[in-house]
Amino acid sequence: MSPGGGPEGVRLSLDDVRALARQVLSATGLSAAHVDAVAETMVAGERDGCASHGVYRLLVAANSVAKGVVSLDAEPVLDEPAPALARVDGGGGFAQLAFERGRPVLVDKARRFGIAALALNNVVHFAALWPEVEALAREGLAALAFTPSHAWVAPEGGTRPVFGTNPIAFGWPRPGRDPFVFDFATSAVARGEIELHRRAGRPVPDHWGYDADGAATTVAEAVLGGAMRTFGGHKGSALAAMVELLAGPLIGDMTSQESLAADAGRGGSPIGGELIIALDPAGFLGGALADHLERAEAMFEAIEAQGARLPSQRRYAARARSLREGVVIPGALHRDIMMLLEQKG
Amino acid sequence: MSPGGGPEGVRLSLDDVRALARQVLSATGLSAAHVDAVAETMVAGERDGCASHGVYRLLVAANSVAKGVVSLDAEPVLDEPAPALARVDGGGGFAQLAFERGRPVLVDKARRFGIAALALNNVVHFAALWPEVEALAREGLAALAFTPSHAWVAPEGGTRPVFGTNPIAFGWPRPGRDPFVFDFATSAVARGEIELHRRAGRPVPDHWGYDADGAATTVAEAVLGGAMRTFGGHKGSALAAMVELLAGPLIGDMTSQESLAADAGRGGSPIGGELIIALDPAGFLGGALADHLERAEAMFEAIEAQGARLPSQRRYAARARSLREGVVIPGALHRDIMMLLEQKG
Repeated sequence: MSPGGGPEGVRLSLDDVRALARQVLSATGLSAAHVDAVAETMVAGERDGCASHGVYRLLVAANSVAKGVVSLDAEPVLDEPAPALARVDGGGGFAQLAFERGRPVLVDKARRFGIAALALNNVVHFAALWPEVEALAREGLAALAFTPSHAWVAPEGGTRPVFGTNPIAFGWPRPGRDPFVFDFATSAVARGEIELHRRAGRPVPDHWGYDADGAATTVAEAVLGGAMRTFGGHKGSALAAMVELLAGPLIGDMTSQESLAADAGRGGSPIGGELIIALDPAGFLGGALADHLERAEAMFEAIEAQGARLPSQRRYAARARSLREGVVIPGALHRDIMMLLEQKG
Repeated sequence: MSPGGGPEGVRLSLDDVRALARQVLSATGLSAAHVDAVAETMVAGERDGCASHGVYRLLVAANSVAKGVVSLDAEPVLDEPAPALARVDGGGGFAQLAFERGRPVLVDKARRFGIAALALNNVVHFAALWPEVEALAREGLAALAFTPSHAWVAPEGGTRPVFGTNPIAFGWPRPGRDPFVFDFATSAVARGEIELHRRAGRPVPDHWGYDADGAATTVAEAVLGGAMRTFGGHKGSALAAMVELLAGPLIGDMTSQESLAADAGRGGSPIGGELIIALDPAGFLGGALADHLERAEAMFEAIEAQGARLPSQRRYAARARSLREGVVIPGALHRDIMMLLEQKG
């Protein structure tokens, strides 16, 4: 930890961030394996400028622990229900360790069979999906990931919550470069965005959601107690339904409605499943792999040459900066995190 | 063929539609196997009330034949580049026959391995994707399909075309019911919608696209000569890029820019690839399959109970009506189709 964060910020190196995250997570009582896995996704979020998925999530994770929704020392159990399928039962622990245990099996199966899928079951989810698909893309695979959450989002044409914010993430390998990665909620905005408006007492645009009576509203708190909308009208709504199905019933896990019901008002992070699909480009392309990946680069160039941004570019720019200069944690957030330690101390 | 279509319509039974489609397609010189496969998707489109994918497509298909972009008697060649991957080289013929040849192999692989993928390569594409995913869902599989087209759509943040209209389709099996199916373009609207505005001399909304100079425009013809926009801002644009990658370089086939370049101004349908992914729910669920599919039904009920529509419901309603009453082809379209026969006669 070093000065330089300004009056309202605390500047930390990424090693400092990691140490802080591990210290706080350990203090919650999480087992060492979970501490390491969870801390890494927070370091990654902070490093990539995703403040809402950085050390802020220490508060979120600590809350889930305090509310008793997460198993502190669950040992993930792997099985292989079909040749190209792997499944990790997370035992009610955080998702990160379950993914780490399943990942090498998924990579191996994708390479052997050309395509493979990994289900994470019975995991508590509060993180972004891009770390998963980026990790797979760095192994040379194309990857898709899906997870439901809590029922907060209305289907288009309705006003009552059925879907979660239901993100879809995709990763594509780029030889010699950072992978092409996107990860977005199928809700109109992130739920945290509405929460920020609520805290600031600011109105939200009237297309973000409905109040509990199903009326459009600009009151952030009303949307949080009513229903958010999906992005992109009927198309986004269709994708949200797909995420429910693929990462819910398909893998024998909960829908967002079931997850919210299981939370029983405790306000913990969603519990349920995640589906990750990996394709090995070498499966279709064999020795012509490099040529065809080069054709993908031509498409990326056509996008960037006209000033449009690839979805992962902002994160990678933040990453380069953070690796060089460290990150700045807002003073108030840093104090809240330190208070978690004091409470445990 | 029977009267009853009104002054501007010709009423046909679905058998009539099939006979008409086969007659016209045969007259173009297509081989019998292609005639049968292509005619069925047109019957399905007309039956389901998708006028733009019904017998109207006879004009589109005949145009691609006339322009020499399609091989009339290509014999699809199947191979299996990896255990869970199948590939059909369509030899420059229409995509439908290639899918028919690959479909049983895809179904078999999905059941054996839990997940499998089928690439169609070197096919001419002018049809919707929902027939593919619906067929797979009727075999009990969850299915995703993707295909690029011609570069007509700008990435969000840019104004020059890179992507095709790049549809994404998804199918989910519902025991005892029609499958849950969606199929939508990742462009803001279907290209045909802009074409209809052009013909009618009507302005288009200014968020549909850009003119050739990159300025927003309400002139339909200017958008057709410039660039369409994606749906849903950056999220739709990210999905469009994913479709390019998965159904282009991943399977060794053309991007939408390459397909348009290969067309060389002939104005034919896109040539390139399609990727279809199939997952067998029984792979993850085993004997618990029925219970978990029932939980998916609970989600569908939560959607429909609030008056929201499932994406496939309108098509299925039209289907029931068409099977009972036949369909009505607009008089002008029927005349245009009959003219194709006279030209060939």
